[in-house]
Amino acid sequence: MAPQLDGFFQQVDGLSDHFIDRLRKAVAIPSVSSDAARRPDVVRMAHFLSDELTALGAQVELRPLGKQPDKPDLDLPPVVLARYGNDKGKRTILVYGHYDVQPAEKTDGWATEPFELTVDGQGRMFGRGSTDDKGPVLGWLNAIEAHKKAGVDFPVNLLMCFEGMEEYGSEGLDALIEQEAQRFFADAEAVCISDNYWLGTEKPCLTYGLRGCNYYSVEISGPGQDLHSGVFGGTAQEPMTDLVRVLASLVDTNGKILIPGINEQVAPVTPEEESLYDDISFTMETLHDALGSKTTIFEDKKPTLMARWRYPSLSIHGVEGAFSAPGAKTVIPAKVIGKFSIRTVPNMEIDKTNELVYQYVQEQFAKLGSKNTLKVYAQHTGKWWVASPHHWNFTAAAKAVERVWGVKPDFTREGGSIPVTLTFEQATGKNVLLLPMGSSTDGAHSINEKLDKRNYIEGIKLLGAYLHYVAEEPKQ
Amino acid sequence: MAPQLDGFFQQVDGLSDHFIDRLRKAVAIPSVSSDAARRPDVVRMAHFLSDELTALGAQVELRPLGKQPDKPDLDLPPVVLARYGNDKGKRTILVYGHYDVQPAEKTDGWATEPFELTVDGQGRMFGRGSTDDKGPVLGWLNAIEAHKKAGVDFPVNLLMCFEGMEEYGSEGLDALIEQEAQRFFADAEAVCISDNYWLGTEKPCLTYGLRGCNYYSVEISGPGQDLHSGVFGGTAQEPMTDLVRVLASLVDTNGKILIPGINEQVAPVTPEEESLYDDISFTMETLHDALGSKTTIFEDKKPTLMARWRYPSLSIHGVEGAFSAPGAKTVIPAKVIGKFSIRTVPNMEIDKTNELVYQYVQEQFAKLGSKNTLKVYAQHTGKWWVASPHHWNFTAAAKAVERVWGVKPDFTREGGSIPVTLTFEQATGKNVLLLPMGSSTDGAHSINEKLDKRNYIEGIKLLGAYLHYVAEEPKQ
Repeated sequence: MAPQLDGFFQQVDGLSDHFIDRLRKAVAIPSVSSDAARRPDVVRMAHFLSDELTALGAQVELRPLGKQPDKPDLDLPPVVLARYGNDKGKRTILVYGHYDVQPAEKTDGWATEPFELTVDGQGRMFGRGSTDDKGPVLGWLNAIEAHKKAGVDFPVNLLMCFEGMEEYGSEGLDALIEQEAQRFFADAEAVCISDNYWLGTEKPCLTYGLRGCNYYSVEISGPGQDLHSGVFGGTAQEPMTDLVRVLASLVDTNGKILIPGINEQVAPVTPEEESLYDDISFTMETLHDALGSKTTIFEDKKPTLMARWRYPSLSIHGVEGAFSAPGAKTVIPAKVIGKFSIRTVPNMEIDKTNELVYQYVQEQFAKLGSKNTLKVYAQHTGKWWVASPHHWNFTAAAKAVERVWGVKPDFTREGGSIPVTLTFEQATGKNVLLLPMGSSTDGAHSINEKLDKRNYIEGIKLLGAYLHYVAEEPKQ
Repeated sequence: MAPQLDGFFQQVDGLSDHFIDRLRKAVAIPSVSSDAARRPDVVRMAHFLSDELTALGAQVELRPLGKQPDKPDLDLPPVVLARYGNDKGKRTILVYGHYDVQPAEKTDGWATEPFELTVDGQGRMFGRGSTDDKGPVLGWLNAIEAHKKAGVDFPVNLLMCFEGMEEYGSEGLDALIEQEAQRFFADAEAVCISDNYWLGTEKPCLTYGLRGCNYYSVEISGPGQDLHSGVFGGTAQEPMTDLVRVLASLVDTNGKILIPGINEQVAPVTPEEESLYDDISFTMETLHDALGSKTTIFEDKKPTLMARWRYPSLSIHGVEGAFSAPGAKTVIPAKVIGKFSIRTVPNMEIDKTNELVYQYVQEQFAKLGSKNTLKVYAQHTGKWWVASPHHWNFTAAAKAVERVWGVKPDFTREGGSIPVTLTFEQATGKNVLLLPMGSSTDGAHSINEKLDKRNYIEGIKLLGAYLHYVAEEPKQ
């Protein structure tokens, strides 16, 4: 039997100005986690959420995380842990979001004040954090409020985990999740994260996979200090010469990874997986628009989506220690560090991948016959994540999307990483669903970040409807 | 007949404290040409020289050069043009030096205040500009004063050209030299520049050659803006991938330039030239010390000096537009600009070299089959310079070295460029001599720049003696 949602939906529409005002108050708090000077604002944002949740009847804890590792005098902002409902007869769902934001200054090129929510004639609500991730976080609070005011019983027990350091590596969060997996999160039966985006602007999606990321440094050094190329050019072996030759051996123009053993680890495509791509709402024109060019490797949708979601890629990000400013400087850099990363997919193993990379880079360098010194190491590694899109958590979300938006969602994966997804899956052992509210044009980390009013209001309905359908799904 | 120099020499020794005091006053003026805020100090330094020269009886002009091209509100410092003596019966010699200095802050790591001349127990006079180039510039003034006080007739008419923008590209100087070649400099019969260094610390040298420098940018662009490697990795052709492959094709670990046609332009070694290298005071240990490592291409002196002086070299300096900071950033840079330069030697031609570089880079890029866009261009070019070490200007200087230091000088070339050398040669059509005062350990552009008291005082004698020998050399 389909859930009765009309009363809740009407209440959301009726409260829409109030919900936008709540978002306005949240955006006005510049909770920039990467800026130590803004730390009091990040903490203020935690208290804002705590006060709002308490007023709605939730039990709230502000959980301290200790000092920031790279700034030992600075307290990390607390994690907001909250519970709404404690009925043994209901399912319990754990939701995650973050209340910190990326830096933003008007002078970066914003058309409006970044910390003043500004709604234009097309219903675009501009403001830092509007879509990443204050809108989705408030979506859960708004859903609770609309249920209360509509007199509709809340369908599940809701556990909430809202952190304040997501934009700065989620410092301290993994340990808390692992520690609370069998305590605060013990009765969670599934996890839902609303912190990503639709693939385009028109069709909602549910996301069931993410690539991992192994980030490498190749350091080549020789002279004791930087040299003048006039005085020393031709007499000394130059680290930069060696580095570009090693980097050039990693990947070709069409993205083929040249390190033996990497591609061999990739899981083959099954017919079932292959069929998923056909219906996905995505065009090469959308990709060309996002790129700002037509310099794609593939001409068609399917190989492009597969390359983004289910095959590894290798990108060379830059060189530390060499001349990088505009103009001309005749330096021979003494030590240069090339940076590259590999996006990883099933069934690649982190340790095996590292070994293959180290061995190949060492071999390529050895071929040069250089007297310089090589070091190669991983700066960080993170595993890929793929969930089952057939789990009741996804089935419920798909029904909610169809009810609210009138279309079946695309089942998508993403090329990037959201490490907390894997942490929640591994710590709780439960299915994790990524349920986005915003669309591909929201500009999460850019200037003029926005959330469309339609995505916000319908998104509140979606989050609430998802909880109703979750409550009705049979156990698998 | 050898010139009578004893009276002059004794006077230099007697006035040595006074001459060191003159250098102290000059070092105390922080005439940093690259810092707009220091421009009044640069101008003050010009007036200091003008006042000192006027007091010595020279005719002095402060010649304005207009506005600084990259800072249209800022006046360039004047060139100090001076004449001492106007006797038709004497030879006329033009000398060049510069009165501006590199930046220096105590906090850069200086052991002493950079703008306070500090003499240690070993007679090392530390201070910014002590050796580059205030010591040598004052050397000419001191030589005049010692002649006057000794009552020794000055052997030549001396034309002086001291600029204040040498450390910032000699802005405006070329035009002035060309304009004055047939006016203020019209009667100059030879040119002497004291603005370089001995090859080591013990043996004086005369320098008769410099390499040129062509500086290139290779710009590869594709996407309209920087991309996230998670979202776009594997779907777009990456400019940085293309760039490292192009850069890797330019030169190998042992410095061999791989661009066809470059090495073919190099003048063959003559037996006469080859014999010059044998006696030069230079060891691989000195080079290892200067490098701070043993990562040299050659094991022996002769091929090393030839590689530095008379063969071209190619150095890759860095990449603009890529990630260059410490840490990890998962960016796909949209536009990257590789920078490299070729040190040029006889008989390489600038235009031909440029064409060979452009063609080769375009060919290497074409091989990649990339949809990205390539541009390759020279940021600046500068010709090599080689003078005849058998000209009377060099013969006179060699005799002066032997008289003052008791050894025959090494005849050296340098790997770097001093563009003004070629400008003077081309504009005046006269022989140019590089006659260094300081030694290889002076640290011209480094922290703790110094000039040894011995090099300063004997250097004053050397400059004066050179003028006496020049006066006696027969016309060739």
